[in-house]
Amino acid sequence: MFEIVKRDGLARIGKFETRSGVLETPALLPVVNPKIFTVTPRELYDEFGFRALITNSYIIKNNENLREKALEVGLHEMLDFEGVIMTDSGTFQSHMYGEVEVTNEEMVQFQKDIGTDIGTVLDIFTEPYWTKEQTAESIEVTLERLQQACDMKGEMMINGVGQGSIYPDLREDCARRMATMDIDVHPIGGVVPLMEQYRYTELVDVIIASKKGLNPNRPVHLFGAGHPMLLALATLLGCDLFDSASYAKFARDDRMMFIDGTYRLADMKSLDCNCPACRGQTLESLKKMTKDQRTKILARHNLYQITQELALIKRYINEGRLWELVEIRCRGHPAMLDALRRLKSHTEFLERTEPLSRDGALFYTGSETRARPPFLRHAERIMERYVPSASKAAVFPDGSKPYSRAYEWEFHKARRAGYVPIVITPFGPVPAELDEIYPLAQSVFPEITDAETVASMDELTFNFLEKMGFEEVIEGCDVPEDGELTYDPDQIRARAIANYQFGIEAADALFRGKIDIVKSRKTGKIRNVISDGEHILSLRAPDGLYTLKPEGAKRILEKVPAPFMRVAVNDDSVPFVSNGRNAFCQFVLEMDENIRPMEEVIVVDKDDNFLATGRALLIKNEVMSLKKGIAVKVRSGNGDDA
Amino acid sequence: MFEIVKRDGLARIGKFETRSGVLETPALLPVVNPKIFTVTPRELYDEFGFRALITNSYIIKNNENLREKALEVGLHEMLDFEGVIMTDSGTFQSHMYGEVEVTNEEMVQFQKDIGTDIGTVLDIFTEPYWTKEQTAESIEVTLERLQQACDMKGEMMINGVGQGSIYPDLREDCARRMATMDIDVHPIGGVVPLMEQYRYTELVDVIIASKKGLNPNRPVHLFGAGHPMLLALATLLGCDLFDSASYAKFARDDRMMFIDGTYRLADMKSLDCNCPACRGQTLESLKKMTKDQRTKILARHNLYQITQELALIKRYINEGRLWELVEIRCRGHPAMLDALRRLKSHTEFLERTEPLSRDGALFYTGSETRARPPFLRHAERIMERYVPSASKAAVFPDGSKPYSRAYEWEFHKARRAGYVPIVITPFGPVPAELDEIYPLAQSVFPEITDAETVASMDELTFNFLEKMGFEEVIEGCDVPEDGELTYDPDQIRARAIANYQFGIEAADALFRGKIDIVKSRKTGKIRNVISDGEHILSLRAPDGLYTLKPEGAKRILEKVPAPFMRVAVNDDSVPFVSNGRNAFCQFVLEMDENIRPMEEVIVVDKDDNFLATGRALLIKNEVMSLKKGIAVKVRSGNGDDA
Repeated sequence: MFEIVKRDGLARIGKFETRSGVLETPALLPVVNPKIFTVTPRELYDEFGFRALITNSYIIKNNENLREKALEVGLHEMLDFEGVIMTDSGTFQSHMYGEVEVTNEEMVQFQKDIGTDIGTVLDIFTEPYWTKEQTAESIEVTLERLQQACDMKGEMMINGVGQGSIYPDLREDCARRMATMDIDVHPIGGVVPLMEQYRYTELVDVIIASKKGLNPNRPVHLFGAGHPMLLALATLLGCDLFDSASYAKFARDDRMMFIDGTYRLADMKSLDCNCPACRGQTLESLKKMTKDQRTKILARHNLYQITQELALIKRYINEGRLWELVEIRCRGHPAMLDALRRLKSHTEFLERTEPLSRDGALFYTGSETRARPPFLRHAERIMERYVPSASKAAVFPDGSKPYSRAYEWEFHKARRAGYVPIVITPFGPVPAELDEIYPLAQSVFPEITDAETVASMDELTFNFLEKMGFEEVIEGCDVPEDGELTYDPDQIRARAIANYQFGIEAADALFRGKIDIVKSRKTGKIRNVISDGEHILSLRAPDGLYTLKPEGAKRILEKVPAPFMRVAVNDDSVPFVSNGRNAFCQFVLEMDENIRPMEEVIVVDKDDNFLATGRALLIKNEVMSLKKGIAVKVRSGNGDDA
Repeated sequence: MFEIVKRDGLARIGKFETRSGVLETPALLPVVNPKIFTVTPRELYDEFGFRALITNSYIIKNNENLREKALEVGLHEMLDFEGVIMTDSGTFQSHMYGEVEVTNEEMVQFQKDIGTDIGTVLDIFTEPYWTKEQTAESIEVTLERLQQACDMKGEMMINGVGQGSIYPDLREDCARRMATMDIDVHPIGGVVPLMEQYRYTELVDVIIASKKGLNPNRPVHLFGAGHPMLLALATLLGCDLFDSASYAKFARDDRMMFIDGTYRLADMKSLDCNCPACRGQTLESLKKMTKDQRTKILARHNLYQITQELALIKRYINEGRLWELVEIRCRGHPAMLDALRRLKSHTEFLERTEPLSRDGALFYTGSETRARPPFLRHAERIMERYVPSASKAAVFPDGSKPYSRAYEWEFHKARRAGYVPIVITPFGPVPAELDEIYPLAQSVFPEITDAETVASMDELTFNFLEKMGFEEVIEGCDVPEDGELTYDPDQIRARAIANYQFGIEAADALFRGKIDIVKSRKTGKIRNVISDGEHILSLRAPDGLYTLKPEGAKRILEKVPAPFMRVAVNDDSVPFVSNGRNAFCQFVLEMDENIRPMEEVIVVDKDDNFLATGRALLIKNEVMSLKKGIAVKVRSGNGDDA
């Protein structure tokens, strides 16, 4: 059972329930060689806090001593590890050394017999140099074996390894077919050669294609990915589990992993690492000790690098800033930068899970930042949802710096002269009415000087101005010094934000009759919107977006047909949600697929009756597939206001 | 006495001799409040390895107990610190609280009396909001006081604080005037407000302007810079010393410094730090302890972050890759990215100290990378030093990936048809003869797709083709399938590299009569160039550039007038250098100012007689001002070959 606790893009902090305990994801499983423990499983658990490891059932099966012991006392006792144990099946051995002499049935049975928590099907490793036909044929075999494994698995969980080599359509199709099977974890297999050959752009395509097909209610494991440099990117793309044999392999080879690369002890000029393994050591002391002692220290060092990076990734997910960490990490190697830039071709898919707002500023780390989903989202929303409040536009060129305060007077002048002030920003055109909403106002940019970004900003603005059909467009500095304000800018602002956030149809439903704007005495900013005497909306200060009040929600339900903005829950949930309790995934019947994380939603019963308002934490395909976890953080139920 | 041990750009690993020991730079001096030790000086020395600290003589002087004690036992005993002690003078207090009631003379005398190693003049803090006139006037006062301090200093070293606010010309002028005074360390003062206000682009301008005027034989201290985020950039720009009061100030305020920012304990979700201070702690355990206990742990954590970053910076300098670290660090905040981009306007100055080659690949981290000095250098050298080997050019468009192998056959075809193969790369045009030299061949790029870079690459190539005056230019793919090779590509390559590396005039001197090329049997690459039976050049495999042999050097001496490629040493050095010993700065009489670090040079005596060949480690203005350290790494002296 898998639950999403926190999300950022496709990344998720999750809880994965197994019979050996709950595993928090993202997690990395150290690979333990059953023949030699470079670091003992006990140390992995106690010293490093690893709650899961992976070992190889094929090696155990082929070694008489290990096999007998494992069958006799079980894997957990044999390894002295009380956490989750996953086993691999021999597939990687077949990739490395050719065919293996076991059947899928034997391997699944053996894994069950030794008490592994998560066993693996004996899938066929699709090599990147294979033809598409060969790849497609082998996937059929993998899927057959997987069905067999699912039928046999009993109490053991099963890894349903996705294959498809470098063919995104095969990857997606394979994933989609596995989604309907009784699988517990989805490793993405066959990617080690891509990582070894720095083919990270193809790795991005492979992961995205797999994610498109997979069921969101199961953790995704990127098989063989263990270098800290790669973890942030892979997590952003929705991988939950990783494994690393390198920590030990590199250590035996006198190599130390750092976030910016792997270094040979022989090439290092000094050891300046403060990790618990290295503390007190120098290059000289390491070189002097026995090979075994040194290997152990380097392996522990490598593990600390991994745990440190995973902790950092979790911190960035919690802060909603994982994109920023990824953009920085991907500059560690030009091939990683290629991978980062590749994300641009997947923005549409990534936009679906991108939260609508977050706490704190959005930082621009380079021209690559403009490929992030919020930029696409703004470009679309502004074209579809903006209604000009005047027939003329005054365009201000410099939107690369926080502009509200700088332009305050110019905006006022433009408004008096009957122009809509519009600023060209890295997001594209931003009419002044929208200059306090997330992420337009909460972003921090460097000065934008690169020609491509400038051209793109200009193009977005040009298209926007054309579509809006202004009868006159002038530059902001040319606004004439005359005129008197003929309208209330707060009224314009209140409506423009509603259009932008909810769409024009819903805003029409919300705004009717006399509109009163309640402003904060302290900040002078809009706080509440009252329509025909009813409090329909409150404006949040941090992100400048609305909180939907029950009266507002009811107006939308009345005028805009389902499923728009709805999350429908079953009858069991009705009393709870009405009383302001959260709506949980397992009770959701139906949901608008256009709802994005952190978006305002209306929770209804099966007959579309109002129950509550709240904010969605997940999107439709996640909510519909997950059997646990909060779908909607409910704010005010019907019961509160009734 | 200051010595440069290793350099990368303007950054330097140096050794600074003081009466309390040799301080390795870059170094950060923790600020110790003489009234309260958050971390004791003893701990700073023993636990963290700090060999220098800074404390405030003004505070000591104004506190009767401290003053008496300091005068009685001296600063070192009072603080229990055997390393280098620097003291500040009260200038910062005047910036914070207005005028201070002491004179420069009193402060310098007091610092001498309490036994400080490096005292500071009571300079006038130039505020960024001051007019240029006000700033210029106050600099005159600072310089007068500085002269007074120099006259009084005795055995104490003196900090000659450079001022000039945000006016680069005043900064440079102030620095230049200080360069002739008997000063020991050059702090750049008055920059704290710039850092507090994220005005990093101005900080870049201030540092560069100061560096232009300063004497390279003294360490430069960026006063008040202590956040780890800033250290890599400031070091790249030639700052050697830093100080930090924040480690303690932030700790008292329950804030933890990390490389990517400062976080309040209250905002943190978990503590996942493995530094020796945090190890074993959790957020909860920190919150539970007494304020004093917690402050101490947080201060130690903050210090570990600083020492960790400094160690990393040193590693990158040693690897010649500091630019890469800087480009990554500057993405931590958009204002830092602005600062990084600002470096572009200083490329010409930065090029002067940029090493000609280094070990290992040059990594491209984003479009900002093209502002690095090697790009400018190539653009200039290719225009000035390239002589086409044929009258027609075949231009290959894709230079963003390592191309030599991919294009091998196409190049061959082009040559047979009488065309010079030229590849458009991020460096601009690269004729095939030069495709193995540093950094053209040792660079790793992502795919270049951004319009600005592509346009700039095209423009450089267009200008190049025009200047070369080819009678025909075609695209590489259009090369006709005919012709026979009418010349030896190795001969062309050997000469082209010499032109590029030494200039056409020197290459003319080197290449005369019959040229024999000795190639490696293993790799097929050029190893040695023999001209008229004399071994003049050897080609290095790693960077594809020549090592100059004595016979070659003598030909250049004969044909190209001094000071070209020369480093002239005094008579005392002659016997040593002739025997292959290195040439040291203090013995150098004259030097070609066009020599770059790692460039081949000819060491001569005062009458321009050949002594040795070698590689320069420093540039002229450094060599002429330093009193210690290697100027030229000598390879083969006259004595060896005679």
